[in-house]
Amino acid sequence: MPDLHASRRDALRTLLNESGVDALLVTDLLNVRYLTGFTGSNAALLVHGEGDKRTVFCTDGRYTTQATAEVPDLERIIERESAAALLERATAQAAAHRRTGFESQHVSVETHDGFARVAGGIELTRAPGLVERLRLVKDETEIEALRMACAAADRALAGLLAHGGIRPGRTEREVARDLENRMLDHGSAGPSFSSIVAAGPNSAIPHHRPAGRPLHAGDFVKLDFGATVDGYHSDMTRTVVLGPPAGWQEELYDLVRRAQETGLEASLPGQEVADVDLAARRVIEHGGHGEEFSHGLGHGVGLQVHEAPRLAKNVAGTLAVGMTVTVEPGVYLAGRGGVRIEDTLVVRDADPELLTLSSKELVVV
Amino acid sequence: MPDLHASRRDALRTLLNESGVDALLVTDLLNVRYLTGFTGSNAALLVHGEGDKRTVFCTDGRYTTQATAEVPDLERIIERESAAALLERATAQAAAHRRTGFESQHVSVETHDGFARVAGGIELTRAPGLVERLRLVKDETEIEALRMACAAADRALAGLLAHGGIRPGRTEREVARDLENRMLDHGSAGPSFSSIVAAGPNSAIPHHRPAGRPLHAGDFVKLDFGATVDGYHSDMTRTVVLGPPAGWQEELYDLVRRAQETGLEASLPGQEVADVDLAARRVIEHGGHGEEFSHGLGHGVGLQVHEAPRLAKNVAGTLAVGMTVTVEPGVYLAGRGGVRIEDTLVVRDADPELLTLSSKELVVV
Repeated sequence: MPDLHASRRDALRTLLNESGVDALLVTDLLNVRYLTGFTGSNAALLVHGEGDKRTVFCTDGRYTTQATAEVPDLERIIERESAAALLERATAQAAAHRRTGFESQHVSVETHDGFARVAGGIELTRAPGLVERLRLVKDETEIEALRMACAAADRALAGLLAHGGIRPGRTEREVARDLENRMLDHGSAGPSFSSIVAAGPNSAIPHHRPAGRPLHAGDFVKLDFGATVDGYHSDMTRTVVLGPPAGWQEELYDLVRRAQETGLEASLPGQEVADVDLAARRVIEHGGHGEEFSHGLGHGVGLQVHEAPRLAKNVAGTLAVGMTVTVEPGVYLAGRGGVRIEDTLVVRDADPELLTLSSKELVVV
Repeated sequence: MPDLHASRRDALRTLLNESGVDALLVTDLLNVRYLTGFTGSNAALLVHGEGDKRTVFCTDGRYTTQATAEVPDLERIIERESAAALLERATAQAAAHRRTGFESQHVSVETHDGFARVAGGIELTRAPGLVERLRLVKDETEIEALRMACAAADRALAGLLAHGGIRPGRTEREVARDLENRMLDHGSAGPSFSSIVAAGPNSAIPHHRPAGRPLHAGDFVKLDFGATVDGYHSDMTRTVVLGPPAGWQEELYDLVRRAQETGLEASLPGQEVADVDLAARRVIEHGGHGEEFSHGLGHGVGLQVHEAPRLAKNVAGTLAVGMTVTVEPGVYLAGRGGVRIEDTLVVRDADPELLTLSSKELVVV
C-alpha cells in the first residue's frame, strides 16, 4: 500500500519542518516498516523534508527482491551498512542535508560515533521519537490489523474452552501450545509475546512462564497471550477457574473485574494516563488489595506489544482518539493465586471500542 | 547454576580491571542473562570489580519471585527503572564506583543523557563489548544447550521427511508450521527465528518468508530454521528436491555442498574469518556462480541467532576454540531456484565439532 506509507511520510515531514531538520535518518526497523512497509531485518531510510523524490531506502542483498516488492515507490540502495550508506548519500548532497536528524533514542553511543565519522559537512542532529509520535495514534489500517489480531486471540480462547483444552492433568506448557496453535489457525503469524499460562499458585506470579506444572481442580488459570497480524500485536488476559470457585476466588475475580470495567470507562480522549490508572487502582485499593496490584494498568499496543502510551502512576500524557491501549488490572495473592483481566481497546470520541471481545464473566471449566 | 554465573562474573572482572573501571553497568538483557541467569524482560546489573559482595541486580515488581529463584546469589533491588536505580546506588557509594563503565554499544544517546543526569560524582566511562567478548567463546554448558537445540532441529526435519511432510500441494506455510511444531516436540522452547520454507523460484530468495505457495513437483525446497533451548539458538538449512532432480539441480547442489564442506574444513582455530569465507567462496566462484552467492558464509550463534563472529569478506577477526558458528554458503538463480546448506559447529583444537548432524546428501522427496 504505497499510498498509505507515502501519506505517513508526508505526516512525518510536518514534524521534520517543526524540528528544523532537512531530513531524518530512520534506523529503527519498526519505524522503517511503518514508513515504507518493508519487513526485512536490515534497513534504513533517509526521509527528506522536501518529498519522496529525495527520499532513499537502503537494505542489503538478501532483500533485493523483497524490497522491490515492498518499497516500489522509493529509490532503493543495496548496501549492508544501510545507515552508513544513507549518510554517505546525505554527505554527497550536503547542501540539501545540512541538518540531518537521527533517532537518538535508538542509536547507541558507539553507533553515533560511527555516524559522525561518515557525516562530513552535514550536521547530525538529535531528533528523538518523531516517528513514534505518529505511531501513537493509529490509522484505520492499523486498527483493522489489531482488530484481526484480537479476533485471532478471542477465537483461539473460545476454541480452547469449547474443546476442553483447560483441564486437570494438562500442563501449563501444553495449554500454552494449544492456544498458540489455535491462534495460528485463526490467522496469527505468531504469538505476540511468550504466552503466559499460570495455574494455581503460579497465577500469583504476574509474568509466570508456563512450565511442566499440571493443572489441578480448584486452580485459577491465568492466560495472557496475543496474536500478530501484519506486524500488529494483540494482548489479552483471562483468568478462569477449574471447578467450582471458592468464595475468595469469586470475590477476587469480582474485584478485578470491577477495576477493569472502571479502567475501560476511564479510557477517554483527554484523560491523563495516570488518572486512568488511578481510577482502576482505587477500586482495588478500596477492596483492600492495593499492595497486590503491583504493576501499571496498561500500555499501548501496535507494531510493538508494549509501546507508548503507558497507563501508570507518575507517567505524563493524555489519551487521544485513535490510541490503542490495554487495560489490565491484576491482584496477586502470593502462594494462593491471582487474577488479571485484560482487553485491548481503541480510544474513540465517546466510549472506547473494545477489540477484545471475549466474555469477562468468571468462566468455570 | 549460581557457580556458573559467578565464574562468568569473575571472568568479566578481569576485563574490568584491564579497562580501568571500578564497575560495569550491564543493561543489555542478554548480557544480564549470561551473567546471572535471569530471564525476565527488565533488568540491569552493576558488576563491581571487587567481587559479588558489591555487585547488585535490579528488576521490577513483576519479577520479584522469579529473580529470587534465578538470581539467589546477588543482592537484588526491585525498581522499574533498573539502570537508573543501580546508578543511584553507584552514586551513593561514589568512592567505590569512581569510574563506572556502561555498555556504549547498547545504550542510546538519549538514555546516556539520562544516565549522566543520575550519575553525580562518578565518571561514566564507555566500556563497549566486554560481556560480548566473553560470550564469543562458549563454555561447555552453553555448547550443551546449543547441542540440544541443534538436535531438536535435526529431529524435527527427520520427522518431517519420514512422515511425508514435504509433498506437492502443501503450502510453504504449512511445512513451516509442521517443522516448528516438531521442534517443540523435541524440546525447543520456540523457533530460533522466523522459519524459512521456500519452494521453487522462491528458493532463490535468500530470506523468503513462507506463504501460501503450494509445493510442486520439480521444486527445490529450502528450509532454514532453528530451535531454542535454554535461550540458545540453533540454525540450520537443508535444501531438498521434490521428485527426480534435473541436471542443473544436481550440479547446483553438488557445488554448494562442496563449498560448504570446504567452509567446514577451514573452520579451525587461528583462521581469519575472512579467509574461511574466501575458502568456501572460491569453490563457488570456480563453479561460475560467485555473483549468485550474495551473502557472507556464516555467523556466530548463541544467546542470539546472529552474533559475533561474522564469517564474511572485509571482516577482521580469527576463530578460536569454543566459538560456535554457522557455515552456510548458498547460490541463488533468480526465477529458477536456489540451494543453501547450513550447519552449526563448534571450533575445536582439531576438526570442528558439528552440532548439526542431518545428512547433506541431496534428499529427493
